[in-house]
Amino acid sequence: MTYRLYGFGQSGNAYKVALYLELAGLPWELVPVDFFNGAARTPDYLANVNEMGEVPVLVDGERRLTQSGAILMHLAEKHGSFRWTSADERDEILRWILFDNHKFTSYFASYRFMHAFMPKDPDPAIMAFLKGRVDAAYKTLDRHLARDSAFIVGEKPTIADLSLAGYVFYPVAESGIDIAASYPAIDAWRGRIAALPGFKPPYDILPPAPGAGRRP
Amino acid sequence: MTYRLYGFGQSGNAYKVALYLELAGLPWELVPVDFFNGAARTPDYLANVNEMGEVPVLVDGERRLTQSGAILMHLAEKHGSFRWTSADERDEILRWILFDNHKFTSYFASYRFMHAFMPKDPDPAIMAFLKGRVDAAYKTLDRHLARDSAFIVGEKPTIADLSLAGYVFYPVAESGIDIAASYPAIDAWRGRIAALPGFKPPYDILPPAPGAGRRP
Repeated sequence: MTYRLYGFGQSGNAYKVALYLELAGLPWELVPVDFFNGAARTPDYLANVNEMGEVPVLVDGERRLTQSGAILMHLAEKHGSFRWTSADERDEILRWILFDNHKFTSYFASYRFMHAFMPKDPDPAIMAFLKGRVDAAYKTLDRHLARDSAFIVGEKPTIADLSLAGYVFYPVAESGIDIAASYPAIDAWRGRIAALPGFKPPYDILPPAPGAGRRP
Repeated sequence: MTYRLYGFGQSGNAYKVALYLELAGLPWELVPVDFFNGAARTPDYLANVNEMGEVPVLVDGERRLTQSGAILMHLAEKHGSFRWTSADERDEILRWILFDNHKFTSYFASYRFMHAFMPKDPDPAIMAFLKGRVDAAYKTLDRHLARDSAFIVGEKPTIADLSLAGYVFYPVAESGIDIAASYPAIDAWRGRIAALPGFKPPYDILPPAPGAGRRP
């Protein structure tokens, strides 16, 4: 069985799943989504692919799964790679995946989208608001990684790492946020992820969708 | 064993957990957090309660759990109330909990916080940005509820409902967003939740923390 993944290169949320599939050595193929021309918002897409109007969507036989965190939990449980070893560890992984969705990915992704991919320059007040939220979330993770362990939960990489890593490998020019300069523990941690066998950065796995914005 | 829940009345994320404990009839007690005076950001809180600087935190014996979605998954698995009946249903519940954290709760909670609880008036451009995101998320859920079923996943309430319901019972004056007027399917759905035996609105379960903002 070959997985089918709806996605596009600029989506770090799609990259989270694609990276899992690559690192776990699973067969998959891309269903490219022409996101910047509205392909994820058509009535057909909302009715038949994902009512949330988003990527990623993973087709696993008869099932369609959405939300990167739910997909990663599903794949880890099914295939064993990057999985928890106890119920407590699973709760802890889920905790960090939720933090990622609520705070870490969400504000960064919005900030980067407005910085790089909108047709015109964003409002500086909105960007300052989002940047404050990005900083708070990045500092929380940087503190965690500086103190605790090689990976997010313990000494081995799990799907919590793949989730939080979704947006940290894109070119600095896309966000204007230089992780290496500002968040040393996050920078060291992403180096450990980049050293995993089979690792590839986002645009080496997923081709970018056309029609995106102004930069870089 | 009595659960201990760190929270305060204005936090819909704490209310999600408190509502579960009430509806499931479990013994629990509140650890009030003086949020608006910075109690969730002290070095002690970050080191010993929650490094994410947030509520809710649930103390379950020797374990401390954070992130409302992870806590709800833990409680449902342990006690059975509002739980899934298959692995597929669990994935679907988790999908909606992630949507809640990523889009539905997150933008609304930020909007309401700035509308009601900050010391001074927020920037109109930021509010317009957040309101657009709130609308998109609320329309997605309204469409889902209008089309599919009595509750978020199927015909029985699950923890997905308790998660998404976290912020829909607060007074309209706190957000300026009138759910009854704008999102009829969400309005009908919250009526079904309010009819569950043992239901109480937020401030009837959790006393508000002092020192909050300007309104109402």
